[in-house]
Amino acid sequence: MAHTLKIAALQLGNHSNKREAINNAVNQIHTAAKDRGAKLVILPECWNSPYDTKQFAQNAEHIPNGETSKALAKAAADNNIYLVGGTYPEEDGGKVYNTCPVWGPKGEFLGKYRKMHLFEVNIPGKVNFNENNAFTHGNNFLNFNIGDLKAGVGICYDQRFAEFAAAHRQHGCDLLIYPSQFDTYTGPMHFEVTGQARALDNSMFVVMCSMARDTSQDYAAYGYSAICDPWGRVMCRAREGPEMLIADLDLRMLTDVKKQVPIIHQKRNDIYELKIKK
Amino acid sequence: MAHTLKIAALQLGNHSNKREAINNAVNQIHTAAKDRGAKLVILPECWNSPYDTKQFAQNAEHIPNGETSKALAKAAADNNIYLVGGTYPEEDGGKVYNTCPVWGPKGEFLGKYRKMHLFEVNIPGKVNFNENNAFTHGNNFLNFNIGDLKAGVGICYDQRFAEFAAAHRQHGCDLLIYPSQFDTYTGPMHFEVTGQARALDNSMFVVMCSMARDTSQDYAAYGYSAICDPWGRVMCRAREGPEMLIADLDLRMLTDVKKQVPIIHQKRNDIYELKIKK
Repeated sequence: MAHTLKIAALQLGNHSNKREAINNAVNQIHTAAKDRGAKLVILPECWNSPYDTKQFAQNAEHIPNGETSKALAKAAADNNIYLVGGTYPEEDGGKVYNTCPVWGPKGEFLGKYRKMHLFEVNIPGKVNFNENNAFTHGNNFLNFNIGDLKAGVGICYDQRFAEFAAAHRQHGCDLLIYPSQFDTYTGPMHFEVTGQARALDNSMFVVMCSMARDTSQDYAAYGYSAICDPWGRVMCRAREGPEMLIADLDLRMLTDVKKQVPIIHQKRNDIYELKIKK
Repeated sequence: MAHTLKIAALQLGNHSNKREAINNAVNQIHTAAKDRGAKLVILPECWNSPYDTKQFAQNAEHIPNGETSKALAKAAADNNIYLVGGTYPEEDGGKVYNTCPVWGPKGEFLGKYRKMHLFEVNIPGKVNFNENNAFTHGNNFLNFNIGDLKAGVGICYDQRFAEFAAAHRQHGCDLLIYPSQFDTYTGPMHFEVTGQARALDNSMFVVMCSMARDTSQDYAAYGYSAICDPWGRVMCRAREGPEMLIADLDLRMLTDVKKQVPIIHQKRNDIYELKIKK
C-alpha cells in the first residue's frame, strides 16, 4: 500500500436548486481529483437541498438509484476516485433517512450509511432542531476499504458518541469520515474537539466535512471542516465559506501511534467492554 | 443542595523530601479552604515523592494508615472539606499501587481508587515511561457523594479511555476528578482535549489536577491543570508553575446540558452497549 493517501473534503456552498447543487458538486469533485490529485473525495451533510425538516421528504430520492446518486457514481468513475457522497435525504419504503452513500473508483456502489443518532438539540434562544420530526434512524454501521485502509462513515451528531467511533475501531477502521453540519452555537464549542477526541481515543484519522456557512438559510452550518491525525492534532481546517480542504494522510503514522501510546490494546475489557450488537 | 460548589485544584510543586511535601500540601489545603472557601480540594498525582519507577516501592505507604494519609485525614477534618488526596504509592500485600484516597469533612475515609490503566508510553526521543515496571493495576471504580452530587475518581492515563469516563456516567457521576501528571510531549497535544472530551461526552464537570513542571526532575510534569464544565469548555487553567485553581461549579448547568443536548439519553444500546463488569 502507498504510504500516503491524498484526500479532499469539500466544504460546499448552498445552491438554490438541486440541479445546481449537483452540478457544483460534480465540478468540485473533478477539481479535487484532476487538479489536486485527491484519491478520496468527501462531501458534507445534506448538501443537495436545504437542511430543513419540512423539506427533507419532498427532496428525498432512492439511493443509489436517484438523480443525485447517478451523478455521483459517474463522477467517481470519471475521476477514478473513492467518493463519500456526503448525505442527502433518502426515501425507502415510505420512510426518510439521512443517508451517506459511498462509491469506488469504477463508480461501483460500496454501500450506504443511514444516520444512527438523530440530531436533537434545544438550547433556548440559540438552536432548536429535531431530526426525529423528519427522519427515521438507521441501524447499521458502514465501512469500506481503500486498499488495506479501512474507512468508516458517521454523520454529524454521531460525532458526539464516543461509542460509535470505538465501534469503528473494533471493526478495524483507521479512518472515520463524518459529513456534518454543526450549528453555529454548538459548533464553536464542540465540532473540532469531538473530532480530535474521536481521532485520539481510537488512534485513527478523522475527517469532519461541513457545509459552508450561509446565514440566508434558516439553519446556518458552522463550517470549519477539519482533518485530524491519529494524535488528535488538527492537520488542517477550513473557515466559514466554501473551501476545498486537501490533506496527505501519512498512513505510517497509524503504526507509530498504536505502538507508542498503545491505548487501543490497553482497554480493561475485564472491567468494562463495549459490545457491538450488529 | 446548594447550586454552587467551590472547588480547588492544587497544582503542587516538588519538594526534596516527603515531610516537606506533606507540610506544603497541608498548608495549601488550609489556604484553599479557609482563605478561598473551597469545599472540595484536589491534589495531583504522585505529589509526595518523585515520579520515578525506581523509587515508588521505597516511598510506598499503607493507605489509609500511613504517614501521608494521616496528615490528609486531619487536614480534611481541620478544614471541614472533602479532600481528594491526589495519588501516592500504596503498599499492600507486597504489591505497589498508584492510589488516590478520598476523605470527607469529618476526616472520615471514603475510599481509595487504584489506577486501572497504567501509563505505558514510548515515543523515541520524547518520552519513555512504563508504570507496569513498578505498579500493579487496580480493578475497581470509586465514587463518593458530596450531598447529592456524585463524584468519580480517575488517574492521569485513565483520561485517555473514553469507556472509563462513560462508566462513571453510568454510575451517576456528574463530576470526574483526575489527579494527573502528563508528560511535556503528549501534554500539550492531549491533556486538555481529553479532559474536554470526557466532560462533553458525558455531560459532566471534569477536573484535571497536575503537578507543577519541574525540569530538574527526570520526569517533568506538563502542568496546565484545568477544570471543564459539562459543555466541554475550559473554565480555568493553570500554567506551568505551582498554582491554586479555584472554580465555582454551577450545578444547575448539569440539568440544562442533559436536557438541551440529550446525548446521554440517546445512546443506541440496541446497537452497541458499554457493559460494566464490576
